[in-house]
Amino acid sequence: MTAPHFIGLDLGGTRIRTGRFSPELNLLARSETQTRDEEGIEPVIRRMVEQVQAVLPTDGARVAGVGVSAPGPIDPINGVITTPPNLQGWKNIPLRDILRERLGLPVYLGNDANLAALAEHRMGAGRGYGHVIYLTISTGIGSGVIIGGEMLLGSAGLASEAGHLIMAVDGEQVTTLEKEAAGPALARQAVRALRSGQQSVIRDLAGGDLDAVTGRMIGEAAEAGDALALSILRRAGTMIGLGVLSLLHCFNPEIVVIGGGVALNTWQWLIDPLWDAIRAHAMGEAFWQNVKIVQAQLGDDVALIGAATLASVGAK
Amino acid sequence: MTAPHFIGLDLGGTRIRTGRFSPELNLLARSETQTRDEEGIEPVIRRMVEQVQAVLPTDGARVAGVGVSAPGPIDPINGVITTPPNLQGWKNIPLRDILRERLGLPVYLGNDANLAALAEHRMGAGRGYGHVIYLTISTGIGSGVIIGGEMLLGSAGLASEAGHLIMAVDGEQVTTLEKEAAGPALARQAVRALRSGQQSVIRDLAGGDLDAVTGRMIGEAAEAGDALALSILRRAGTMIGLGVLSLLHCFNPEIVVIGGGVALNTWQWLIDPLWDAIRAHAMGEAFWQNVKIVQAQLGDDVALIGAATLASVGAK
Repeated sequence: MTAPHFIGLDLGGTRIRTGRFSPELNLLARSETQTRDEEGIEPVIRRMVEQVQAVLPTDGARVAGVGVSAPGPIDPINGVITTPPNLQGWKNIPLRDILRERLGLPVYLGNDANLAALAEHRMGAGRGYGHVIYLTISTGIGSGVIIGGEMLLGSAGLASEAGHLIMAVDGEQVTTLEKEAAGPALARQAVRALRSGQQSVIRDLAGGDLDAVTGRMIGEAAEAGDALALSILRRAGTMIGLGVLSLLHCFNPEIVVIGGGVALNTWQWLIDPLWDAIRAHAMGEAFWQNVKIVQAQLGDDVALIGAATLASVGAK
Repeated sequence: MTAPHFIGLDLGGTRIRTGRFSPELNLLARSETQTRDEEGIEPVIRRMVEQVQAVLPTDGARVAGVGVSAPGPIDPINGVITTPPNLQGWKNIPLRDILRERLGLPVYLGNDANLAALAEHRMGAGRGYGHVIYLTISTGIGSGVIIGGEMLLGSAGLASEAGHLIMAVDGEQVTTLEKEAAGPALARQAVRALRSGQQSVIRDLAGGDLDAVTGRMIGEAAEAGDALALSILRRAGTMIGLGVLSLLHCFNPEIVVIGGGVALNTWQWLIDPLWDAIRAHAMGEAFWQNVKIVQAQLGDDVALIGAATLASVGAK
């Protein structure tokens, strides 16, 4: 019997992507459609089933299982979508069992950031390392943790929400890594400075409309040497460095892989203040001197690859 | 052949404690002496060997191994005391191999907070739970993490230093959970308030000498209804709650066990603000609604029991 193929499905708020992967997890076929969650849950599930069917092998190859990536929080242990913030109306949907029933294949469910961590660990920047932290910095901050080659789930599958590390406590004001360093936070910081009269090309990039400022514009402005953008990114690098440092103190990993649009588009301005913060505040050199901090390698397909990897792990 | 016994040794900055434990990890014999690290490393090691010999069985029972608890940071993987803050002159001492050679028994080395976590998990307040966080709050804040019944070590054995979670970032000021909520921090906060003219029985407890204020006095003053002490403990409870919340978001445990003199002596004033902070700032109810937060049960012997437990785990 030849080695089986694996299917990965990435259920996002905007798109459903599906891929069939070889036994070595190389992508062989892919399919993509819109999620259109405003049409209700059943049509989305039907589209998921169609997308999987669209990539099934036609040459008689066997499929061992389907991995599904979904936005958290989810219950990966019982395969239930609990209350994702970006899928309308999805509340306590036993997606794993529904898909298993309709597809007649084993189905495994994981949260997108955890599966991205698994993918970077097995196929990307974290290959060859047993202890990996993965962070994704875009409109939010998500993370996944690999300990001794295994994905950390915690008691109910909710572990590794590094975006919700408590970062600052200023009187009654409590904030988190995500609220300080994700894309919307950077945009908000820019708008605040612009409103207080600071000069910056960010105003022009937004066409003069401060409500139109986005995280992406901060990177574009930095590219043009804009002082406000550079100072926002310096602070973001420091905050991310302090968040990573808490993770180094908690998990003692070998490598930290950072992905997500905000991080990858502004890497050159983040990485120095990030390392400076770690070196300045670590409880000892041993916590960072052998640690690598690198860019994620798998791009937009990371959760798809992670989902297929989950299917391959689950099917063993 | 009858089941073997295990020996635990707790190397502290002040005392060396040793115990022989039954196969079920009940304490059968114990011995204790002073560390006297100012006399140099070799005399301390000789005393450790003598203490182990003092508890060896005389009835022919077999000993399977010796577990040693030492203050961190250490290298538990290679059995080396690297640079403990409270053992003079100890730097890169391969204690495991030295003791194994002299005792002719398998020796296992662990850091005291990690072993305390293991002990509370196997024999104390965390019994029956697979996912446990242990925090000790005294002159410092240490921690240990049990994931699926296993002690988290990380890539180099440095994991789970929760006292060094980054807690507050106020401009250039970076602080940690330990710097905000360990005993010396509470004393420092009291002294600052007293110097600024605030009335409190803490001044009397210290005999009018502000340099003599200790963390313990904050608890004593709270017992007397002192407003300053109560406000310091309320803030400490909030800070510890926010630190625990970061750990809930990272590890998703079932139970958090808190020990250490500061926490146990002031529990009644810490626990409400601690829970309030968690409920107010968690990313969702699922992160705390089934979590238990309880006092440690094993008292001063916790690291000793943990060391014996390590020997029993290592010998399997």
